[in-house]
Amino acid sequence: MDKLFIDKIERIVTDRKVGYSNLTNASDLFKKFNEFDQEVYKDRSLKRKYKELIGLGSSISNNCEPCMEWHISQALKFGATRDQIIEGIEVGLEIGGGPATVACRFALMVLDYYTIYKSVDSE
Amino acid sequence: MDKLFIDKIERIVTDRKVGYSNLTNASDLFKKFNEFDQEVYKDRSLKRKYKELIGLGSSISNNCEPCMEWHISQALKFGATRDQIIEGIEVGLEIGGGPATVACRFALMVLDYYTIYKSVDSE
Amino acid sequence: MDKLFIDKIERIVTDRKVGYSNLTNASDLFKKFNEFDQEVYKDRSLKRKYKELIGLGSSISNNCEPCMEWHISQALKFGATRDQIIEGIEVGLEIGGGPATVACRFALMVLDYYTIYKSVDSE
Amino acid sequence: MDKLFIDKIERIVTDRKVGYSNLTNASDLFKKFNEFDQEVYKDRSLKRKYKELIGLGSSISNNCEPCMEWHISQALKFGATRDQIIEGIEVGLEIGGGPATVACRFALMVLDYYTIYKSVDSE
Amino acid sequence: MDKLFIDKIERIVTDRKVGYSNLTNASDLFKKFNEFDQEVYKDRSLKRKYKELIGLGSSISNNCEPCMEWHISQALKFGATRDQIIEGIEVGLEIGGGPATVACRFALMVLDYYTIYKSVDSE
Amino acid sequence: MDKLFIDKIERIVTDRKVGYSNLTNASDLFKKFNEFDQEVYKDRSLKRKYKELIGLGSSISNNCEPCMEWHISQALKFGATRDQIIEGIEVGLEIGGGPATVACRFALMVLDYYTIYKSVDSE
Repeated sequence: MDKLFIDKIERIVTDRKVGYSNLTNASDLFKKFNEFDQEVYKDRSLKRKYKELIGLGSSISNNCEPCMEWHISQALKFGATRDQIIEGIEVGLEIGGGPATVACRFALMVLDYYTIYKSVDSE
Repeated sequence: MDKLFIDKIERIVTDRKVGYSNLTNASDLFKKFNEFDQEVYKDRSLKRKYKELIGLGSSISNNCEPCMEWHISQALKFGATRDQIIEGIEVGLEIGGGPATVACRFALMVLDYYTIYKSVDSE
Repeated sequence: MDKLFIDKIERIVTDRKVGYSNLTNASDLFKKFNEFDQEVYKDRSLKRKYKELIGLGSSISNNCEPCMEWHISQALKFGATRDQIIEGIEVGLEIGGGPATVACRFALMVLDYYTIYKSVDSE
Repeated sequence: MDKLFIDKIERIVTDRKVGYSNLTNASDLFKKFNEFDQEVYKDRSLKRKYKELIGLGSSISNNCEPCMEWHISQALKFGATRDQIIEGIEVGLEIGGGPATVACRFALMVLDYYTIYKSVDSE
Repeated sequence: MDKLFIDKIERIVTDRKVGYSNLTNASDLFKKFNEFDQEVYKDRSLKRKYKELIGLGSSISNNCEPCMEWHISQALKFGATRDQIIEGIEVGLEIGGGPATVACRFALMVLDYYTIYKSVDSE
Repeated sequence: MDKLFIDKIERIVTDRKVGYSNLTNASDLFKKFNEFDQEVYKDRSLKRKYKELIGLGSSISNNCEPCMEWHISQALKFGATRDQIIEGIEVGLEIGGGPATVACRFALMVLDYYTIYKSVDSE
């Protein structure tokens, strides 16, 4: 797997951790939003892995790379298969059209990173 | 259920039918896109009802009313429960933020239309 | 002021009330988001009227009509002047470009509705 | 052609005229933006009809109905053929994906309105 | 402060200067837009710092990094306090939802760059 | 021309080739979308170069950098002049407003890359 891509994906993960910590210190409202956020994605009538795939579809149509990295890693962690994620990417392509092909390429590399290059063993 | 809302939802359904037929006649490429579209949403590793919920999440964050009507009616038709659709709406709210509250209100009325006012017995 | 426009704006207000009540009953997570939402717009270092103008700017660039109606009525209620709202609309035009001219026209009519046709005496 | 659709399209045209006049009176900056806007779409190396088709493509992917009405009427006025506009709509579909099918249906009805129901004889 | 982040922010500033100069030479219409743009953000009934915060809110919901850098540096230059900018970021989060958490993290780092790492002494 | 910019543009081209190949292997539906895509941009009543300019306008208002690189290189390859592309960028600015100034700066550098730094001799 391409070194520049690996660096990019690992930078996304680091940036999230550092940024999350900084924002949590700076803003009580950010913490409040996060509580809402974590509540939304919990397993209830709809399992978390499907909720993560909803998040992935939107990430692809919005071309949000850190969002794709997050939703793919979480979907895998909560039981989505590689094939299910590819089908989620395809729905994202249908929603996002031509510009989403850029995001789909990125999403597939994230999927390869987590399923081939390394396994997801930690958040 | 409010008469103006029922008229609105039924107008969305009629407009789709008429518009679909017109576009199919006017554009071979529209037909080609539709073939792709229908293929994407088919049951494979990921069941169609979950794919419709991905579509719903994006519809809410984009505030596309005819899209919400479509994905909710299809999700119901292919087996999603009322609770699962409400949870899909909640994920849409998380993705779309404040402006999505407008779409969530609409989506819930569509859900009530199909689960309370009438049952989904036809496309 | 044009009858159809007045009907439209009053429909927006009614839909919000009804929809808000329905969603609150259907979804605890919607309630949780609303708590966050109300907290965000409170007067603190930045007065609420300026926060409403931030909301207005985004509503214009997203062409969200119920959002415009909300943020304009709240900005007025919390002390923004007509001129300040017009300048907020102009920033929205700068952000949104050509498509935002449609939203700016709507926003100005909302402003006229609340400052000329009637005064804002209730939420 | 459907009476409700004709009313809708004619309402769009009326709203633009009234709103344009109101905004011009209320905001010098709106006038300044309009000067820029009119300058952009002028025939130079790229003919106006092609510029209107660029505007149409974006209108479809943003689902801005008054924008579609405007760019289609102007494209026709400045010499685009029906077939060229249909191909512009198809590019809009490629850019906008599934949600753009809603906009494409609307755009085709606008095109029918101007090429079949009435001819474009005035702005 | 992280070296990669500092390089990124300084690259944004350099790119703007170089790009602005190139575009000004290549396009008279870009110059015309800039005149409009600078006029919009001037102090009038609404002070410039509040206009920059409107710009910031939209930048966060659109995840436009160079826009965030610009509006934060200008808001500081024209008198916004650190707390006011954090509240502007929080409104951006409310508007942008989950995907905006990525932008909020970036915005906070920009704010730290200008208020802790260096002071804003030049455009 | 700036070394970092050249690296960036060449990385975009490489990423597209690699990503396209990976996605084609992983997803038959991606292939199906690509067939539709390629069909849409073919010369028919509207020449391909104008279709690429429609794509460019949307890329600018969406700030999709790989999309800009693609549509500019293709517009040049299929006969658009430098002046026509600059006018396409200007229409993109009108559509995208202030945030699009970031994209316009990038688009002009892509145009300089292909017309000054190197000629387009291959896809």
